[in-house]
Amino acid sequence: MSPEPFDAVDVIRAKRDGGAVPEDALRWMVDAYTRGYVSDAQMSAFTMAVLLNGMERDEIRVMTDAMIASGERMSFASLDKPTADKHSTGGVGDKITLPLAPLVAAFGIAVPQLSGRGLGHTGGTLDKLESIPGWRAALSNEEMLAQLADVGAVICAAGTGLAPADKKLYALRDVTGTVEAIPLIASSIMSKKIAEGTDSLVLDVKFGTGAFMKDPARARELAETMVALGTDSGVKTTALLTDMNTPLGLAIGNANEVRESVEVLAGGGPADVVELTVALAREMLALAGQPDADVEAALADGRAMDTWRRMIRAQDGDPDAPLPVARETHTVTASRSGVVTRMDAYDFGIAAWRLGAGRARAEDAVVHAAGIDLLVKPGDAVAEGQALFTLSADDGARFDRALDALDGAYEIGDTAPETAPLVRERITA
Amino acid sequence: MSPEPFDAVDVIRAKRDGGAVPEDALRWMVDAYTRGYVSDAQMSAFTMAVLLNGMERDEIRVMTDAMIASGERMSFASLDKPTADKHSTGGVGDKITLPLAPLVAAFGIAVPQLSGRGLGHTGGTLDKLESIPGWRAALSNEEMLAQLADVGAVICAAGTGLAPADKKLYALRDVTGTVEAIPLIASSIMSKKIAEGTDSLVLDVKFGTGAFMKDPARARELAETMVALGTDSGVKTTALLTDMNTPLGLAIGNANEVRESVEVLAGGGPADVVELTVALAREMLALAGQPDADVEAALADGRAMDTWRRMIRAQDGDPDAPLPVARETHTVTASRSGVVTRMDAYDFGIAAWRLGAGRARAEDAVVHAAGIDLLVKPGDAVAEGQALFTLSADDGARFDRALDALDGAYEIGDTAPETAPLVRERITA
Repeated sequence: MSPEPFDAVDVIRAKRDGGAVPEDALRWMVDAYTRGYVSDAQMSAFTMAVLLNGMERDEIRVMTDAMIASGERMSFASLDKPTADKHSTGGVGDKITLPLAPLVAAFGIAVPQLSGRGLGHTGGTLDKLESIPGWRAALSNEEMLAQLADVGAVICAAGTGLAPADKKLYALRDVTGTVEAIPLIASSIMSKKIAEGTDSLVLDVKFGTGAFMKDPARARELAETMVALGTDSGVKTTALLTDMNTPLGLAIGNANEVRESVEVLAGGGPADVVELTVALAREMLALAGQPDADVEAALADGRAMDTWRRMIRAQDGDPDAPLPVARETHTVTASRSGVVTRMDAYDFGIAAWRLGAGRARAEDAVVHAAGIDLLVKPGDAVAEGQALFTLSADDGARFDRALDALDGAYEIGDTAPETAPLVRERITA
Repeated sequence: MSPEPFDAVDVIRAKRDGGAVPEDALRWMVDAYTRGYVSDAQMSAFTMAVLLNGMERDEIRVMTDAMIASGERMSFASLDKPTADKHSTGGVGDKITLPLAPLVAAFGIAVPQLSGRGLGHTGGTLDKLESIPGWRAALSNEEMLAQLADVGAVICAAGTGLAPADKKLYALRDVTGTVEAIPLIASSIMSKKIAEGTDSLVLDVKFGTGAFMKDPARARELAETMVALGTDSGVKTTALLTDMNTPLGLAIGNANEVRESVEVLAGGGPADVVELTVALAREMLALAGQPDADVEAALADGRAMDTWRRMIRAQDGDPDAPLPVARETHTVTASRSGVVTRMDAYDFGIAAWRLGAGRARAEDAVVHAAGIDLLVKPGDAVAEGQALFTLSADDGARFDRALDALDGAYEIGDTAPETAPLVRERITA
């Protein structure tokens, strides 16, 4: 007879009928799925039931813990400084990790940013940094710990040993229409972050056209779920709910986003990028025990820039090397005079992707110099014929499909649009 | 690029989000699943979404039609008489097909009863008939048509060519906790019945402890769904909602159920079996154009029995051969005097199954002589020590586990139970 203590059909039925799955049964379900005893078809029915019937707070904690238990856990206990991590749910022009990690590390905090690559219309932090000649994303655990001890900031590729159950489950959800289940999104993100072993975590949960969650209410639900989950798992967690209806900053791509990040580290840069970098840094420093740190000063006096340069050099990058420049550019101008009322984050993300800044398949390479540079933002007055944005690509044949994506993506009107705050809400435990 | 016209994830999402799946997309989903292009995991997520969000009447019709289109269709158009079919959702002691088919055929109607074998606590019509020496369940299409033309009644095994998509989907639902979805139960049953090509169909939808649907309201919903589906597909369809809280008749098993059926065909038999046989025969005859047929007369004057004997002989069975008798019997007596207030159909079904009347795995053989003979029914007065029922098995070691199942399965009280009608409701288009 089967030595298995539970029956997958019973677990599925419990969730299907709207009940909570008992802790031992839920742990078994995740473990047995990782082992291959529970089939893809059974887990798929279960995840659809979770999507439609939800999970209680305690179930989400158990699910996350079971995914963590499927792989290795890291520990930063050997460092004699607190650790703080940031996670963004992803957006267009979101390069915040680049200035943020060295900025927070400048205050003596260890910032281990295990990051990913882009897929779809949102870029990946590793892709952006790989624009820098020589920079390498893959570090051993020893290299990472040494860099955290020395420089304080590390941005590198997440190892494959963290939460393998999540990897298997995410691939399944992707092909079975169950990506959108908030308990599963939360446990997927948080299992990796908790397995990393950080003391504290600040979440940048985005809503709007360019975000994974279009609807602010759904984004808030996700943020609240993740803050509860982090807290329940012993990680100090806070979330900011931020607007992703408009691209963040002026640069969308890879090399140009690095350039913009360096401007911020030099004390300049677009106001929205500075605002979000400072807001997230304050949250991370507060959780790490420095609620009164003068974040702006570290940008203004070069401490953050110094840390950036040391961080890039530690990973064999040359912070002074010229960044790649595209072979072809195409500038779009205003068809009338007026005020820019809208620039749609999703459409600009798709256009940058089509220019080569993103990849269609996981195995594709990105074109580091491809992307879009905005010359105006919503609220700016423009004259007919004035340049609005510039597309960059290595192959001019890509412009047509990018321009197709931008058809209707921006508007010029007669009156300035209403302004909405970039940081909409702060969610704490 | 993929030559497929739809994406399974889009189809899953449409149902997940509570919408109706467009006809062409739903047809494609069933076809692509049958071909193996849509995976088990994808179909499993889809069926869970159907279970939780339901399907509209038109979607159920399309789903059923797509399952029919996955296999062959039979046609009785070459017969110069109307066809009528009956389907029961299954119960304990439900031998009604045996007297019913020859009874209706005695009125010149062709009755093609493509039947199955038992699995679990409910018996299978083919298992019961195989108690008759020589009788064979497997007929070619030509043999079936010849027998329908000549005798009028056929009870035989359904060919494997009917609705193969249903077979694949049912196996998937069985392991993924989605058996209970009413749209899928309805389309599973009706796809095979419609593919058989009958003109009219009477459904015996059971509710109660011994039925697949315990709850009358759920059974009614299933009956209404199937009547609508049959009607939409051009089959005249009626359903009776019948009580399955108590075993039907006095015999539960195989050979003993044949014996009881022959009693009914001889004008005798238990009142409940006669009542249900007559009620279903009236419905079938009404749909086939004989609303005023004198059904009782055909039982009383031997016409039904003559047709039975010809039907059994046409399939190489000997209607006069002695039926198998069990090697061991065990009789249970009343522990007190009083009135039998309850005999639980499910528990008696499980007990008969454990005695060998049913099979645990599809490849097991049944013991034709095993089963239970009731000597009293609810409402009967009994004296202490009076025999209540007799268990039969080929191996006396089976009695213990059967008696375990019967612990608490029946009660003797002081006052007669309230009587409920066997046929609770009639559901028409």
